[in-house]
Amino acid sequence: MDQIKLGIIGIGNMGSSHARNILDEKCPEIRLVAVCDKNQERVEWAKKELSADIRYYSSPEEMLDSGVIEACLIAVPHFEHTKYAIECMKRGIHVMVEKPAGVYTLQVKEMNAEAEKHPDVVFGMMFNQRTNCVYRKLRELVQSGNYGEIRRTNWIITDWYRPQCYYDSGDWRATWSGEGGGVLLNQCPHQLDLWQWICGMPVKVESHLHYGLWHDIEVEDDVTTYVEYANGATGVFITSTGDAHGTNRFEIQMDKAKLVVENNQLMITEYEMTEQEFSKTNTQPFQTVKANTYEVETDGENPQHVGVLNAWADAILHGGKLVAEGREGVNGLTLSNAMHLSAFLGKKIELPFDEELYYNELMKRVATSKRKVGVKAVFSDTSSSYGGNR
Amino acid sequence: MDQIKLGIIGIGNMGSSHARNILDEKCPEIRLVAVCDKNQERVEWAKKELSADIRYYSSPEEMLDSGVIEACLIAVPHFEHTKYAIECMKRGIHVMVEKPAGVYTLQVKEMNAEAEKHPDVVFGMMFNQRTNCVYRKLRELVQSGNYGEIRRTNWIITDWYRPQCYYDSGDWRATWSGEGGGVLLNQCPHQLDLWQWICGMPVKVESHLHYGLWHDIEVEDDVTTYVEYANGATGVFITSTGDAHGTNRFEIQMDKAKLVVENNQLMITEYEMTEQEFSKTNTQPFQTVKANTYEVETDGENPQHVGVLNAWADAILHGGKLVAEGREGVNGLTLSNAMHLSAFLGKKIELPFDEELYYNELMKRVATSKRKVGVKAVFSDTSSSYGGNR
Repeated sequence: MDQIKLGIIGIGNMGSSHARNILDEKCPEIRLVAVCDKNQERVEWAKKELSADIRYYSSPEEMLDSGVIEACLIAVPHFEHTKYAIECMKRGIHVMVEKPAGVYTLQVKEMNAEAEKHPDVVFGMMFNQRTNCVYRKLRELVQSGNYGEIRRTNWIITDWYRPQCYYDSGDWRATWSGEGGGVLLNQCPHQLDLWQWICGMPVKVESHLHYGLWHDIEVEDDVTTYVEYANGATGVFITSTGDAHGTNRFEIQMDKAKLVVENNQLMITEYEMTEQEFSKTNTQPFQTVKANTYEVETDGENPQHVGVLNAWADAILHGGKLVAEGREGVNGLTLSNAMHLSAFLGKKIELPFDEELYYNELMKRVATSKRKVGVKAVFSDTSSSYGGNR
Repeated sequence: MDQIKLGIIGIGNMGSSHARNILDEKCPEIRLVAVCDKNQERVEWAKKELSADIRYYSSPEEMLDSGVIEACLIAVPHFEHTKYAIECMKRGIHVMVEKPAGVYTLQVKEMNAEAEKHPDVVFGMMFNQRTNCVYRKLRELVQSGNYGEIRRTNWIITDWYRPQCYYDSGDWRATWSGEGGGVLLNQCPHQLDLWQWICGMPVKVESHLHYGLWHDIEVEDDVTTYVEYANGATGVFITSTGDAHGTNRFEIQMDKAKLVVENNQLMITEYEMTEQEFSKTNTQPFQTVKANTYEVETDGENPQHVGVLNAWADAILHGGKLVAEGREGVNGLTLSNAMHLSAFLGKKIELPFDEELYYNELMKRVATSKRKVGVKAVFSDTSSSYGGNR
């Protein structure tokens, strides 16, 4: 079997998790041939923990120029995602970018523009939550046309709990200069992507962010966002890393159905006719349309990161379909940037928003960002934090 | 057994429902002796449908001055609630006011001021949802002090569906001049009261109202509100009369517990220690505090309107405790008025808000309000719409 020769830039929590999956032969069409980290300690760690058959680099450019790799997975801090993705594209190296696509849309659009110049480069985004059977099925139902239009979306995603020691585990964590934001940039890119993937993009965004409300950090750890869609529908997105046992409940109200995902279960209430048809013909003031509520069956598949990597390899080797096109990464980040901008300015933001203004506002915060002092980096096995449920 | 001699002003949907409960002997300490409605048709209807032992009036003042009644239940359109309550108080007649307490807080404060002058008048508010065992238990837990402070409140109460014919069933319905608002004034006073009864009042309110989004009406039928509490907690309140099968889910996140009421069931996730204690001592970046989730047992009692009336009679005859003190009606209405004002002005409102400004903004809308033409009033048995679940 043909195997793609893969390099990984960044061997922190996520990079090493991907490396282990590949070394454990969960991705039969991918061979890990090189690993790179600018932090020499991490390179030494990787040499000990991973395989002897791998080449190790401390310069990303050196690895990219080595001719050893055909494809590259980028798992560096968010600010540098787009830079290395562009470097890969310029060299004709297929690229998979960890979420978020970047920190601000301007840099992501630069990356997307470079991708346009290299149609042969297979460019994917690590939106592993798109592989979850429940969200795939939800999207299929919403976009089927069988239930009319969306009226209301509501996602309470407050089960991203992080204790203080998580934030203390890296001096870049939860700083404007290190991550460019908090829960919206680090934990929620998955949900922001799914939200738009399933429901489409809103046209107005108003967000209330609270910075360091539950932790000693400078970025947001508590978010309540209200949105409006072009058709008049509304939506709410609530997230936090401060709720020790939060909620993950996504509800979509449509003309002819209500859909709710909670506890990895998709429930539908299917109406006999649309609410509008009922309302126009019904003559009983306290009646509603007949409906049937049941759990929707899915294919049960939820391959997560491994699924994304295997689809990417399939796309490279056989022209298969990606789980998430790289250029779609800009959508979730647009939501995230608009939420930040709304909170920075204290007003409702219309999309498309002023990206230069956002960049300038972000850079003001980066300039005065206080990276933690005396922090010793700690790396963790994060696999329990995304499991099959998120 | 002593019985209170009761009169009812307003024999529409709610007034007649109360009358039937009393005539059905569900309120052993109350005797219905008089009924009044300014609409002569309703008086004729009541004469036929109710008891021959009752006196019928078409002038409220005449009934109040008759000496026949000791207590009065006010079930007239919202704008006139406070006027008749004040008339009762001035005559030493005990008074029970249907929700909402009034349409704007200025008039309700006038009513409360009058109540202060008549300490012997037992003044109650028809907040029948406070009798629901689930909300009583929820309040007890939240206010027990066992779970620390509130961090986040979230009520999605979109199961107030009303079809167009409901709005067409009275020319006053869903008009600024007839009701002074939409879902916030007619359907939600219960939840607005419970929200503050259980969680306390917020200090800031920002609300997005949509007027006639799902119906041909001039007032709001779709609401998304964001609030902030004095301790930094946040909250969201979402309601609509346009969702054919909506949701009634109330979640409260606290320092040491998460509480959720849905499907008339109260679930608690109880932590071993507060989130703060855990976060300070824990050293595992991806861990959270241990917790136990279970359904909370309640006393199962949910006597609704009858419970409110019986407690009122008990308060009058034996000094018992009301379900809801009349003067507490202002709290839910403060939330409702603040939501309207926020939407009218397009900005966040701090409490206490400018009540004169609100009154003036409301009166602008009342002045241009278009009552429906050619509408024939329809009266309905509404009992199925509040059952034991709301």
